[in-house]
Amino acid sequence: MYELGVVYRNINRADRAATDQLARFGASTVHEAQGRFGLLKPCMRPIYAGARISGTAVTVLMHPGDNWMLHVVAEQIKPGDIVVAALTSENTDGFFGDLLATSFRARGALGLVIDGGCRDVRDLTEMQFPVWSRAISSKGTIKATLGSVNIPVVCAGALVTPGDAIVADDDGIVVVPSANVRKVADAAAAREANEGEKRAKLAAGVLGLDMYKMREPLEKAGLRYVD
Amino acid sequence: MYELGVVYRNINRADRAATDQLARFGASTVHEAQGRFGLLKPCMRPIYAGARISGTAVTVLMHPGDNWMLHVVAEQIKPGDIVVAALTSENTDGFFGDLLATSFRARGALGLVIDGGCRDVRDLTEMQFPVWSRAISSKGTIKATLGSVNIPVVCAGALVTPGDAIVADDDGIVVVPSANVRKVADAAAAREANEGEKRAKLAAGVLGLDMYKMREPLEKAGLRYVD
Amino acid sequence: MYELGVVYRNINRADRAATDQLARFGASTVHEAQGRFGLLKPCMRPIYAGARISGTAVTVLMHPGDNWMLHVVAEQIKPGDIVVAALTSENTDGFFGDLLATSFRARGALGLVIDGGCRDVRDLTEMQFPVWSRAISSKGTIKATLGSVNIPVVCAGALVTPGDAIVADDDGIVVVPSANVRKVADAAAAREANEGEKRAKLAAGVLGLDMYKMREPLEKAGLRYVD
Amino acid sequence: MYELGVVYRNINRADRAATDQLARFGASTVHEAQGRFGLLKPCMRPIYAGARISGTAVTVLMHPGDNWMLHVVAEQIKPGDIVVAALTSENTDGFFGDLLATSFRARGALGLVIDGGCRDVRDLTEMQFPVWSRAISSKGTIKATLGSVNIPVVCAGALVTPGDAIVADDDGIVVVPSANVRKVADAAAAREANEGEKRAKLAAGVLGLDMYKMREPLEKAGLRYVD
Amino acid sequence: MYELGVVYRNINRADRAATDQLARFGASTVHEAQGRFGLLKPCMRPIYAGARISGTAVTVLMHPGDNWMLHVVAEQIKPGDIVVAALTSENTDGFFGDLLATSFRARGALGLVIDGGCRDVRDLTEMQFPVWSRAISSKGTIKATLGSVNIPVVCAGALVTPGDAIVADDDGIVVVPSANVRKVADAAAAREANEGEKRAKLAAGVLGLDMYKMREPLEKAGLRYVD
Amino acid sequence: MYELGVVYRNINRADRAATDQLARFGASTVHEAQGRFGLLKPCMRPIYAGARISGTAVTVLMHPGDNWMLHVVAEQIKPGDIVVAALTSENTDGFFGDLLATSFRARGALGLVIDGGCRDVRDLTEMQFPVWSRAISSKGTIKATLGSVNIPVVCAGALVTPGDAIVADDDGIVVVPSANVRKVADAAAAREANEGEKRAKLAAGVLGLDMYKMREPLEKAGLRYVD
Repeated sequence: MYELGVVYRNINRADRAATDQLARFGASTVHEAQGRFGLLKPCMRPIYAGARISGTAVTVLMHPGDNWMLHVVAEQIKPGDIVVAALTSENTDGFFGDLLATSFRARGALGLVIDGGCRDVRDLTEMQFPVWSRAISSKGTIKATLGSVNIPVVCAGALVTPGDAIVADDDGIVVVPSANVRKVADAAAAREANEGEKRAKLAAGVLGLDMYKMREPLEKAGLRYVD
Repeated sequence: MYELGVVYRNINRADRAATDQLARFGASTVHEAQGRFGLLKPCMRPIYAGARISGTAVTVLMHPGDNWMLHVVAEQIKPGDIVVAALTSENTDGFFGDLLATSFRARGALGLVIDGGCRDVRDLTEMQFPVWSRAISSKGTIKATLGSVNIPVVCAGALVTPGDAIVADDDGIVVVPSANVRKVADAAAAREANEGEKRAKLAAGVLGLDMYKMREPLEKAGLRYVD
Repeated sequence: MYELGVVYRNINRADRAATDQLARFGASTVHEAQGRFGLLKPCMRPIYAGARISGTAVTVLMHPGDNWMLHVVAEQIKPGDIVVAALTSENTDGFFGDLLATSFRARGALGLVIDGGCRDVRDLTEMQFPVWSRAISSKGTIKATLGSVNIPVVCAGALVTPGDAIVADDDGIVVVPSANVRKVADAAAAREANEGEKRAKLAAGVLGLDMYKMREPLEKAGLRYVD
Repeated sequence: MYELGVVYRNINRADRAATDQLARFGASTVHEAQGRFGLLKPCMRPIYAGARISGTAVTVLMHPGDNWMLHVVAEQIKPGDIVVAALTSENTDGFFGDLLATSFRARGALGLVIDGGCRDVRDLTEMQFPVWSRAISSKGTIKATLGSVNIPVVCAGALVTPGDAIVADDDGIVVVPSANVRKVADAAAAREANEGEKRAKLAAGVLGLDMYKMREPLEKAGLRYVD
Repeated sequence: MYELGVVYRNINRADRAATDQLARFGASTVHEAQGRFGLLKPCMRPIYAGARISGTAVTVLMHPGDNWMLHVVAEQIKPGDIVVAALTSENTDGFFGDLLATSFRARGALGLVIDGGCRDVRDLTEMQFPVWSRAISSKGTIKATLGSVNIPVVCAGALVTPGDAIVADDDGIVVVPSANVRKVADAAAAREANEGEKRAKLAAGVLGLDMYKMREPLEKAGLRYVD
Repeated sequence: MYELGVVYRNINRADRAATDQLARFGASTVHEAQGRFGLLKPCMRPIYAGARISGTAVTVLMHPGDNWMLHVVAEQIKPGDIVVAALTSENTDGFFGDLLATSFRARGALGLVIDGGCRDVRDLTEMQFPVWSRAISSKGTIKATLGSVNIPVVCAGALVTPGDAIVADDDGIVVVPSANVRKVADAAAAREANEGEKRAKLAAGVLGLDMYKMREPLEKAGLRYVD
């Protein structure tokens, strides 16, 4: 995590097929499936509702108020990638807009996760190019200082290593280390298979207290009822 | 407010008919009608726009990161209730998702107000199960520690006593003590009856300055005009 | 900026034709076109998505929790104005709702920018009366203390002089001093004319690195690639 | 909690002797002793380090930016009281300064807890009149709107009923319902008696793991060690 | 407020003698004396307690993460000045440390007010060079982008014109337009002369209710007492 | 970073001699010396002023509101260590107090960095056991859920690997990867050697503009002076 001015061209992207599956489960199920790790902070919000994507991370580290490296990272994007942008300190400027989105999409990017600000949200919504950001801001950025591309970064409180799988939707963003993607996808599938039956029972009025057999542990823990 | 590990089964719910009326007026009118009291802090936001509900509060107090008591409170829900969930300290984890919503709805709950995080917002939106929360987060919670059900709680800065009426919409959430519900509903109705005429006048170009006879008090207070 | 209890009736509004053009370009392009100045802080958000307006500022300064001056400013509105409301200290109360919106619209106002809270957002959305605010809150306000109308104010971190042009959309809010409006409108038009071609190139896969000739300055700055 | 414009003159103050003891234990021990309830939010900070007080609450509810009721509450102070000031919505204005502190002290107040701002902190520090507040601000307040005195209030997230005991120090502020003060003081004393021995053991290098017999439950919970 | 890359060398500094007097009164009294205007937001805090200064403003506008212009402003400092640094968007980086403080002091500066971060606070405290900032941060800044010196700026929500008087202490920071300094100093002196007598009365147990003759207006406003 | 319920007993601690040197330089100089990386967010503040330490990191990951693992990490502390505590989601509870500090000190710990809350700050100050935390809170924590010890963690936005060097003082906290500690210590020493001469020049009135030869690049960048 300690190099500035470097672009790593070759990264080990997570298994494509397994990565692609993650979007189907969504961020919350994937987060559960990997043991409740890898969640970015909830201050990160989608610029429009309804997007749900999964892809492999290409990462970029930038200086506050300077988006030069977004042009550098564009060249490193491969189809199926999601760009994950981190900053060296907190900043809400509008690093990204519809021109960069056009370029990213042309390179095959599925979306952007940026621990900073985004602009042109009306155009991005029309293009249906999804962005998760800390803020929306018209403030333009300069192109003066080097950062790095495809180094491990901390984005909104989570470590993202280039090539990791990312899944993002209305609930948030989860990073899955590339080595775990298959296992996590399987666990998520198993979890989901499970949920249909549970949902049906709950809808029929069965209580979680009974379905999950919680009455005994609750009593043991000392819960008492007063009429 | 000072008991952990207790579930009160019998609470005095506010008058149903009067409570049901409150939704029609909405949070802002009800807040005015009861003398500008009982508003939860504006950091509480609906997970989707357009919901407007009123109901009787069943309350639950939980530990940060632990949603065990949501399963306990489910059993205490009666048709027409709104669950009001408070935490012992600030936390944005995703305490509530579509499975619990399915269960709550099966019990007759109209919605949830939670001073914490919520997840599965896409599913909740599809189900049209309204939630007002402090955050949206994929972060799952554990089931390890007792809280209480149906004790008075402070939720987002407002005291909520079990059985109080709750009205919630895009403007926010207001609690009405059960003893006041009828009176407040009447005051809200009177207020609203009043508004149609006012709106027509204002739309016709009459100024509030004149309609509310403010010119004299403004002058008395020292307001001066400069050309 | 140092007078309380004064209403200035005559202000020099920015050129109407040039002001009207700004909406077409939007806040982000206008912000760029005037050299990245005049942006209000990104904590200011529209109450619904999709509005894009430009108009001339009438300003009002209020005390926290007191909206009396909104009735005073209503009388000073001319068609094509946008009301810009500042507070003497931070406060999220609901200063503005559908009745005032009805009055403002009758006077010709295009929208409101308020460094405080707003309510009746469902009605305002139905009316399509756009508001940019710091918060949404049911909390009503009193009418007890004088502020001023049409004095220069600092609103969400930006100086707004009465008569300045305002442009607001989903990206944020920008103030353009009245003396600069024509020049800024021209610069924005030039900027936009430019963007179509760029967008086409980027969509065709041309990289910003090449289109903006960034490779040489990046290399000079020391960027290195690692395979 | 739903009356404006009322001053309750007679309140049931918690037992004086038991209340006086609480300061000796401090906020953290008292908070533990009453089962981890009654803590005000940690955004409340002392204006200077080192104060530690306990007393009985007289309460006051004010409008943002209006400190009129602080003059009203002054008359209701009795020796040994702590004034607890709540606001109807968030506001950081400087409601309180050295003149009011002089008056409060003359009436016997031991300190102030205010969910708003404070000023004259240099003078207050010299006077050693302790204040816990949400902010420090020079902003003066007006005297225009009625609030109430000695009604139950929610202050920084905790319910305070007039007469409750308050204990405040560098760690924060805890409210103890008047009915519980003796019991809580006893529990705090027992807790503290216990701590000397524990501290000595820990200082000698005994691990909490052993002293609290945690190894077995940790193992049961699945903790594993890797060399 | 709309020029980048410009240094104004000649500014009209407020009257020195009157400016020097302001420190004696402190920020809160000066803020009152000029009608409760000109206060910077309370998020601005001194890096150490006890400093109280007044001086004339030299202003500087910088880009987030870039402190180049602090070197430029140093040359424009005259004895008795206070540097007021604003940013084009929110940023907490450490723009200022002990080397710049050494330089500023050698030029005659009395202190710094910066709407960003500061570092070397231990050294600055030893030097007794007072700084009011939004944050303390070790994060270094670059020297790549032009801002401006001695243009009007918005700093922490207040407009500061070069040459205005600044008064800063533990309570906060107030700006006094240069044209008003004498008048404000006189008003502050009158205010303070007044306070000694008031303080003595209050210390003797006289209530503000009586001293300020508030009982009648409170009764008129509807205040009622309940025994 | 993806294991819960594991304690790594053997970690590679950074070189002791080099680590010990870092405290002498302080966080800001070390941050510069390693190329402006590794800074924890500025919301982390020391509980008292004046502490300056450096040591090797032992890490712990905890659940919000649960400090069980602090007892587990105590056993893994070796003389010269600093405990770095991260949470799975944001929480300000008081995880740490004087008893744990007594235990940590007995094991040889120099201090604690915790991305949560701390209590007993008066006692910790008397003991001179330094803590950097996000908050101060009396709120106690439970002992119910496993976390991990000595896994890589993200603490306040920075990745900390067990054994890394930590330097912390009034300016903030910097992590230095163990492999870099010697190099960084050398760079910091060189930097500091440099500063004495610079300070003397600046104190003598030499401008940074001249000392750093900035006039030419500023002119090239377009800076212009107006008289």
